[in-house]
Amino acid sequence: ATSGKVIRCRAAVAWAVGKPLSVEEVEVAPPKAGEVRIKIVATGICRTDDHVVKGCIANVEFPVIPGHEGAGIVESIGEGVTSVKPGDKVIPLCIPNCGECTFCLNPEASYCVKSHFSEPQNLMPDKTSRFTCKGKQIHHFMWVSTFAEYTVAPETAVAKIDSAAPLDKVCLLGCGFSTGYGAAINTAKVKPGSTCAVFGLGGVGLSVVMGCKVAGASRIIAIDINKDKFAKAKELGATDCINPQDFNKPIQEVVTEMTGHEVDYSFEVIGRADTMIAALASCNMNTGVFVMVGVAPSDAVISVDPLLLLTGRTHKGTLVGGSKGRNFIPRLVSSYLEKKFNSDLLITHTLPFAKVNEGFALLHAGKSIRTVLLF
Amino acid sequence: ATSGKVIRCRAAVAWAVGKPLSVEEVEVAPPKAGEVRIKIVATGICRTDDHVVKGCIANVEFPVIPGHEGAGIVESIGEGVTSVKPGDKVIPLCIPNCGECTFCLNPEASYCVKSHFSEPQNLMPDKTSRFTCKGKQIHHFMWVSTFAEYTVAPETAVAKIDSAAPLDKVCLLGCGFSTGYGAAINTAKVKPGSTCAVFGLGGVGLSVVMGCKVAGASRIIAIDINKDKFAKAKELGATDCINPQDFNKPIQEVVTEMTGHEVDYSFEVIGRADTMIAALASCNMNTGVFVMVGVAPSDAVISVDPLLLLTGRTHKGTLVGGSKGRNFIPRLVSSYLEKKFNSDLLITHTLPFAKVNEGFALLHAGKSIRTVLLF
Repeated sequence: ATSGKVIRCRAAVAWAVGKPLSVEEVEVAPPKAGEVRIKIVATGICRTDDHVVKGCIANVEFPVIPGHEGAGIVESIGEGVTSVKPGDKVIPLCIPNCGECTFCLNPEASYCVKSHFSEPQNLMPDKTSRFTCKGKQIHHFMWVSTFAEYTVAPETAVAKIDSAAPLDKVCLLGCGFSTGYGAAINTAKVKPGSTCAVFGLGGVGLSVVMGCKVAGASRIIAIDINKDKFAKAKELGATDCINPQDFNKPIQEVVTEMTGHEVDYSFEVIGRADTMIAALASCNMNTGVFVMVGVAPSDAVISVDPLLLLTGRTHKGTLVGGSKGRNFIPRLVSSYLEKKFNSDLLITHTLPFAKVNEGFALLHAGKSIRTVLLF
Repeated sequence: ATSGKVIRCRAAVAWAVGKPLSVEEVEVAPPKAGEVRIKIVATGICRTDDHVVKGCIANVEFPVIPGHEGAGIVESIGEGVTSVKPGDKVIPLCIPNCGECTFCLNPEASYCVKSHFSEPQNLMPDKTSRFTCKGKQIHHFMWVSTFAEYTVAPETAVAKIDSAAPLDKVCLLGCGFSTGYGAAINTAKVKPGSTCAVFGLGGVGLSVVMGCKVAGASRIIAIDINKDKFAKAKELGATDCINPQDFNKPIQEVVTEMTGHEVDYSFEVIGRADTMIAALASCNMNTGVFVMVGVAPSDAVISVDPLLLLTGRTHKGTLVGGSKGRNFIPRLVSSYLEKKFNSDLLITHTLPFAKVNEGFALLHAGKSIRTVLLF
C-alpha cells in the first residue's frame, strides 16, 4: 500500500507566469494531521485555471499545480481525520468549511474564515507543501491542485460524495456547475413562475440556466454575443436567446420590452463591468435581484447610478454556489444521480491527462464548454 | 358643509426655484372620482421638501405646493372612493398603491407602477390640478402637497389610520420615520442578536437606529461627523457612537476592528457616494447586507470594486420603508400607539404653519431633527 509513503505520479506544473503547463513526475508527501491524500480520477479545466497560468489571479505563487474542479478517491488520511476514510469518493473544495469559525457557524455564510480571502491557500495550513518536483517545492493552488494524479487537501476542504457517483462526470460539481447552479438556487433563490436573464453562456452561465429551470422559472432569457451558444442554452432550458449585437439599443431596454417590467432575477456570468450594469438594469426596479457570478479583473470598478438600486433592486455576489460546499456538493451529487439536472451536457470534450495543454487550446479557441481530463 | 365646494385656505407655495416659500390663500377644488380631500392637521418638514424648493428634485414643476409628511382628516371623497370616508384619520402617501398593477400584486414590491418613476405626480391622475392661487394653476407634489390646510390625493395614495392616533405626532410616519424604520425592519430584515452600523444620524438615520433596536440587534454602531447627534442616538438605541473625524483610517476599518468581521447590516442615510462605499465595506464580506437609504444627487455615481460584492455582500436600496404604504403605515401607527417605539423623540420643534420658513431655517442650521408644523 502507498499509505504513509511518498507517491510519485504525474502532475501539470506551471513553472512560471505565462508558460504552458508542463506534465512532470512529482512527489506527493503523505497527509499530515487533519489532511487527506486523494487519488484524482478526473478534473475539469475551468477558465480560472487559465487565469492562474497567465498570472491574473492574485496571491498565487509559482511554481504551482493548478486545477480545482476534480473528483477522486481517498488514498490515505492523516491523524485525526474522521469525515472520510480511504476508498471514499470525494470532491475537493476550493473554499473550505472548518465548521467552527464565526463564518462557518453562520447558517447563511458560504465559506470559512480560514480561506484565501484572509490568507493565501498556496501552502497547507502548516505553511509547508506536500509537492516537490526535481528537488523543488511546488505550491498548492487553493488547497486542491487537481491537476495531479494524487493531491493533498485539508479535511475541511474535502466533501464526501455518494459512492455511486461517476467521477468523470461529477468533477464539474467541484466548481463550474455548482457556481452557476447555486447562484440561481441558493443566492438568487429563484421562485417558480419567475422570469430570469442570464448574461454569458459559458459553462457557468449555462449552469445558471439549468438552476433557473430546476427552480421553476417560467421564462429564461439567455444572452450572449456568440450565437453558437444558443442551441445548448435552449437544450438546457432557455426560453429566449438574444444577441446584443442584433439590436441598436442597450440590451437592458430589449429585456424590458420583452418582459414589460424587466426580469425578476438577472445574472452576470462574464466578469465585465459593462455587462454587470446592463444586468443590474435588466432586473425589476422594484423587486429585482441581480446576482454577480462573473469575476471581474482585479482592477475593475463598476460605476453604478445609485437610483438603480434605491428604487428597490438588490445586487449581490456569489462564490462557488453561495452555500457551504461540504453540505451543498454532496447534495448536488445526489440530485445529479436522481437526474434532477444533466450537467453531462456541459462536457464537450474528454481527454487523457497528458493532453492538458490541448484542453487549454480548446478553451482559448472557444470550442469547448468543459473539457474533462482523465488520469 | 364644504363638501362639493371649493375651499379657500392657506398653503405654502414655491413660486419658482430657489425662492423661499410663500404662505398664500389658495383655492382647493373638490375631489374628483377616485380622489380624497383631506384637512391636513400637521406636517413635518423633511429635507426632501428643501430639495424641492431648491430645485434639486427631478420632475417637479413650479409653482408647486411641497410637503409630503403629513397627517389629517378626510373632509370629503370623490365618486367611487370606498376605503375612507369623511372624518377618517389618514396619512397621505407619496408613493401610491393601486392594488391592481403587476407591482402592487407582487407581495415583495413596495410601490405602484403608477408612481412618479413612470410618470410625474405633479398633477392628479387626470392631468389637472386641484390647486389655484391668484388665478394660476399650482402643481401638486407627489400627489400629497401637505403644506396646505386642505389637499387632494388619489385614494390609492391615502392610508386610513387608527382614530386614536395623535396627528401632530404620527405625521412623521408619512415619510421620515417609516423610511428609516422600514429600512431596518422590511428591507434589511434585521435579526435578533445581530450587529448594525448606521451612517448618518438625521431624522431618518435615527429612525433606522430605532428599527434596529426594535428588531433586537445586539449592537448598533451610530456614525456621524456631528457629535451633537450622539446623545439622541444613544437614547434611541445606539450602543456605540463614532465620529470618522476622530480616526486616521477609513471608518470601515474602524468598524471591522470593533466587530471582528464587520457588521451584519449597514445603512447609509446621508446620500453621499463615499459614505455609501464605506457602509458597503463595513458589512460582513460573506453575509452582510448594506441598505442604501440616503438619496444621492441625481448625477451621482458610486464606483464599486466588484470583489466587495462577489464575496457575498448584498447591496440594496429602499424607498419609504420598503413595504406597501397602505398596509405598512397603518400597522406602524398601531405600533406607535402600543408604544413599540417612540418617534416623538425625533420632534425637536413644533411651529404654527405660518412659520414654515422658520422651520426651514432650523433645518438649514442643523438645529432641528424634525420640525412639525400645525395648522
